[in-house]
Amino acid sequence: MNSPGTDHIIRAFKDILGNDHVKLVKYSHEGTYHTHQSTNITLSPANKDQIKACLDIAKSNNIGLYPVSTGKNWGYGCATPTAENTVKMSLHRLAEISNYNAELGYITIEPGVTQRQLAEYLKLNCDKHWMDCSGSSSDCSVVGNSLDRGFGYTPYSNHAKHIISMEVVLPDGGVINTGHGQFKNAHTANTYMAGTGPAINGLFIQSNLGIVTKLTIELMPKPEYFEAFFFSINNEDKLPGLINKLATLRKSQHIQSAVHLGNTLRVIPAFTQYPWEESNYSTPLPERLVKKYQKMYGIGAWNGSGALYGTKKEVNLAKKYIKLVLGKSVDRLRFINEKKLSFVNFLNEKFPCKKLRHLDKMLKILNPIVGIMRGEPADSVLAATYWRKKSPPPSGQMDPERDKCGLIWCSPVAPATGKHAETISEIAKQILPKYGFEAAMTITVMDELNIENIISITYDREENEDNNALACYFELEETLANSGYYPYRLGIHAMESTLSRSDEAYKTFLRKIKQAIDPDNIISPGRYII
Amino acid sequence: MNSPGTDHIIRAFKDILGNDHVKLVKYSHEGTYHTHQSTNITLSPANKDQIKACLDIAKSNNIGLYPVSTGKNWGYGCATPTAENTVKMSLHRLAEISNYNAELGYITIEPGVTQRQLAEYLKLNCDKHWMDCSGSSSDCSVVGNSLDRGFGYTPYSNHAKHIISMEVVLPDGGVINTGHGQFKNAHTANTYMAGTGPAINGLFIQSNLGIVTKLTIELMPKPEYFEAFFFSINNEDKLPGLINKLATLRKSQHIQSAVHLGNTLRVIPAFTQYPWEESNYSTPLPERLVKKYQKMYGIGAWNGSGALYGTKKEVNLAKKYIKLVLGKSVDRLRFINEKKLSFVNFLNEKFPCKKLRHLDKMLKILNPIVGIMRGEPADSVLAATYWRKKSPPPSGQMDPERDKCGLIWCSPVAPATGKHAETISEIAKQILPKYGFEAAMTITVMDELNIENIISITYDREENEDNNALACYFELEETLANSGYYPYRLGIHAMESTLSRSDEAYKTFLRKIKQAIDPDNIISPGRYII
Repeated sequence: MNSPGTDHIIRAFKDILGNDHVKLVKYSHEGTYHTHQSTNITLSPANKDQIKACLDIAKSNNIGLYPVSTGKNWGYGCATPTAENTVKMSLHRLAEISNYNAELGYITIEPGVTQRQLAEYLKLNCDKHWMDCSGSSSDCSVVGNSLDRGFGYTPYSNHAKHIISMEVVLPDGGVINTGHGQFKNAHTANTYMAGTGPAINGLFIQSNLGIVTKLTIELMPKPEYFEAFFFSINNEDKLPGLINKLATLRKSQHIQSAVHLGNTLRVIPAFTQYPWEESNYSTPLPERLVKKYQKMYGIGAWNGSGALYGTKKEVNLAKKYIKLVLGKSVDRLRFINEKKLSFVNFLNEKFPCKKLRHLDKMLKILNPIVGIMRGEPADSVLAATYWRKKSPPPSGQMDPERDKCGLIWCSPVAPATGKHAETISEIAKQILPKYGFEAAMTITVMDELNIENIISITYDREENEDNNALACYFELEETLANSGYYPYRLGIHAMESTLSRSDEAYKTFLRKIKQAIDPDNIISPGRYII
Repeated sequence: MNSPGTDHIIRAFKDILGNDHVKLVKYSHEGTYHTHQSTNITLSPANKDQIKACLDIAKSNNIGLYPVSTGKNWGYGCATPTAENTVKMSLHRLAEISNYNAELGYITIEPGVTQRQLAEYLKLNCDKHWMDCSGSSSDCSVVGNSLDRGFGYTPYSNHAKHIISMEVVLPDGGVINTGHGQFKNAHTANTYMAGTGPAINGLFIQSNLGIVTKLTIELMPKPEYFEAFFFSINNEDKLPGLINKLATLRKSQHIQSAVHLGNTLRVIPAFTQYPWEESNYSTPLPERLVKKYQKMYGIGAWNGSGALYGTKKEVNLAKKYIKLVLGKSVDRLRFINEKKLSFVNFLNEKFPCKKLRHLDKMLKILNPIVGIMRGEPADSVLAATYWRKKSPPPSGQMDPERDKCGLIWCSPVAPATGKHAETISEIAKQILPKYGFEAAMTITVMDELNIENIISITYDREENEDNNALACYFELEETLANSGYYPYRLGIHAMESTLSRSDEAYKTFLRKIKQAIDPDNIISPGRYII
C-alpha cells in the first residue's frame, strides 16, 4: 500500500491533470466537524478520460478515489473521504447542462452544475420548468444532492426518485448509461428510467460502485398558479395530531409538495444568533430565552410550510379542503400568494413601521422560503449554521465550513404518523441538552408513507467542541436505532456505526456486488457499502 | 451437466416437496406460442425452507431453477423457462397476505396471491384501499405482474414503482429484506423503499438474481369520488395531436391515472371473433369488414379511456379542464360516473331495446373496464385472445394457454409525444399484415414522459402458425430497434435478440453482478441478464 502523498503518485496525477488541478489540502481542517482522515490531495479532472486515467493510477498504486460533486455535503462530512489512504476527486469542472427538452421536461446535468446555474438556465430557456431546490445554498451541486437522496420543497422533492438516467464511469474504466440508455440509439434514453431488465439507478445512489458523470432528471412543469402556506401550533402536544392530518392530506393528494416543519429551537437560529451574554455563556439555551424569542418573533412549538400548485381554481379548492382537514389541529394557518407577498414587501420597504419591527426580519426569512418553493435557490438558510458563533454571519457569501461552524445532522426516517414524530422529538430532547446542545429538529412529510426528521447538532468548531458533538451524535444514533429509527442519510463518521446494524445477509449481498464491480476497492472505500 | 429429468434428481425433489408437488409436464405444449425448451418438471414448494432445499439440489446437480408466481405471463412465454436444462418452480402455494396497514396504506403479499384475492381482502378489511389491477385475469399473481413491470389503470398504475420492499431468497441461501428491511427492528421496514445505502429493489425486477418470496406494496386510498372517461377519434391523422394533449394533461396532473388507447383492430376482438366465413378464410381482416365492425359497434380509429379520482368538486373541475384541453383533438368524449353506469345497466336489463341491440354487448365490455379502474379485477378482457379461434370462448373460465390461443406481445416504449406514437403505429401496420395478422395495438400514456405500446400478434395455435407468428415478432422487434424503440418487457423468446443490442459495458456490468450473486447460474438462466 502506498500513501497517496508519495511524490511519484502526485507526479502521475499532475501528468494527467496538470499542476493546477492537483491540490494539497489538510482534510482534518475542513468539514463542519472533526474528521481523522489524514490524506491530502484533491484532484480536479476535466472530463471522463481524465477520470479514467486517475482510476488507473489509483489502481496501480492501491489507493482510493473519493469523487465529490462540489463537496458541500455540510453536516454529513463535506468533501472528506470516508476512509484513510483515499484521494478526493472534485468533479466541479464537469459542469455541462445539456439535453433540455422543454416539451417533455427533462435535462442532463453534470456534477459541477449548481442549483443557481440550473435555475438560471431554466429561466433563460423557455421559462417552462422549475427545478426542485434543496434548502441548502445555491452553490450546491444538484447531482451531489440527488445522489445522496437530498430533498426539496415542490412535488418533485424526492430528488433521487426524479433521476431518469445516469452516465457512470465504472472502476474497470467502462462507461455505462442507465435506463434505456443501455441501448445506444434509444429514443427513450432520457425518458425511461427502468430500462429493459433490472433497474440499476438505485445502485449508484448512496453508494460507491461508480463515478456518476451525468444525471438526466425530470423537471417540474411551471404551474399556472402557486400559493404557499404557513402554519404553526402553540403546544408540543398537538404535534402527533398535526402530523397525522398532514399525512392524510399527502395521501389524498391535496398537498402534493413536501411539507416541512421546524420546532422552536430549529426556528430561533433563523432569526438570531446565540445570546451568549444574556445567557451568561451557559448552554443549552435557557427556557426563559426560548420563551422570549418565541414571543418576540411569533414562533410556535412547531412551525410548518408547504405549497400548492395548479390552476387558480384548483389551488383555491385545495385550500378549502386543507383548511377543513387541518381545522383545530393548527393554531395558525396562512396562505400567501405571490401578489400578497409582493404587496407586503412593498409596504415594508416604503413605509417601515416601528410597531412591526420584526416584519423586516420575518420577510428576510419568508421571501427565500417562498422562492425555494418556486424553484429559486437561496443562501439565507445557511445563516442558522452560525447560531453558536461569536461573530455574525458574513454579509458576503456564507460558508459554514470556511467559517468553522460546527454542524452534524442526524436524520432518522419514520412512518408518517404522529406517534413516531413525537417519539423521535422526545429522544432528541432527552439527549441533546445533556451535551449542551438545543434539541433543534425538522420534520419533513416526504411522501404518503414517511417522515424524514433532521436533528441538528449545531456548535462552534473554534470552541473545541468537536468531540462532544460527535459523542452526542453517537448516543443519539444508538438510541434511535435501538428504538427502531434509522437515518435516510449518513455522515462519513457514521457509515460504520449505522450500517453495521444491517442484517448479515444484506451486508454480504452488497459486499459481493462491490467486490464484483470494484475488486480493488478504489471508489470511495467505506462509503455506504462497508 | 445433468438432465433435470434424471431419476435421482426427481427423487431428491420429491423427498423435499412430497410426491404431489413435483409434476412432470411438457413445456412445448404450454404457452401462447411455441417454445423449444424440453425439460419437464414443475416444483411447487410451500415455503422458504423448501425453496432453499431446492436451490441446494439444483446447485449440486448443475441445473437451473425458474421461479414463477402463478405463471400466467401470457404473450410473453407464460411459465416456460427461458433456457434449457431448467426446472420450473411455481410459487403459487406461497399465498399469504399480511401486514395490511389501513392507516398508511401498504400490504405484504406472497407470489401466489392473485388479483382476485387481494381485491377481496381489501374489500373485507376496512374497504379503505383499492388495488391497481392489470388488464389481465383475476387469477394472475400480483407479485408476478409487478416483477415484470406490468401496469394497470389507476394513479398507481406503475406496479414496479409501488413496490416498497421485498423478501428475497438469494442463490447462496441467504434471505434479505430490501428497503429499510435491511435493519431487523426498523419501523420503516414496510414504508421506506430506498433503504440506507444503495437501493436494490430494481435489481430483482425483470431479473434473475434471487427468488422474491414477499412484496410489500403501496395501496391507493379509495377516493371520495370516481369518474371514468372514454374518448375516440375517427381518423388516424388525429392520433399525434391527441397523444400530445394527453401527455400535457398527465404532466399538469389533471389526469393522474394511466390512459389507455386501442386502435380499431385492437378493439374489434373485444366485441367479436374473426369472421372466418364472411372473409372467405382470408387474413388479415379485409378492410370492408373492418369498416362494417367500426360502424356496427361505434369503434373509432383510436379509442381511449382513463379515470378521475378525488372529491366530487375536484373531479368536476378536472373534467372541465380536460374538456377544454382535449377540445377538437377528440371526436367523442364521455364521462361516466357509477350512478350513470348503474342506471344504464338497469335500463338495459329491464327494458332491452332492439334498436340498441349493441348496448348489451357494449355494457359487457364497459362494466369490467370501469371495474378495473376502481380496483376490481376482471376476466372478460381475455375474450380478445380467442379472436382467431374457430370456436367461441368458453362460457366458464377462459384460459388462452389451455385453449391454444396464439398470442405474442411486442411492447416498445417511446417518449410521450404524438410523433412517436404515429411512427410505431406505422411500423406495426407495415409489418403485421405481411404475415396475415391485424396490426392491433394499444398505447398507454404511462407517465409524464413515456408511452408504452403493445402490439398484439394474435392467432390460433391449432392452425400451425407458431413459426409465422414468431417470424413476424422478430421482424417487428428488429425494425423497431433499428428505429430506436425498445420493449419495456420481453417474452422468453426475445431475451437474447433484444438484450444483445445493449451496450457492451452495460452487459458486462450486469454479468459481473450475476456472476457474483449466482456464480452457478442457478436462477432463471438467460432471463433478462444474458
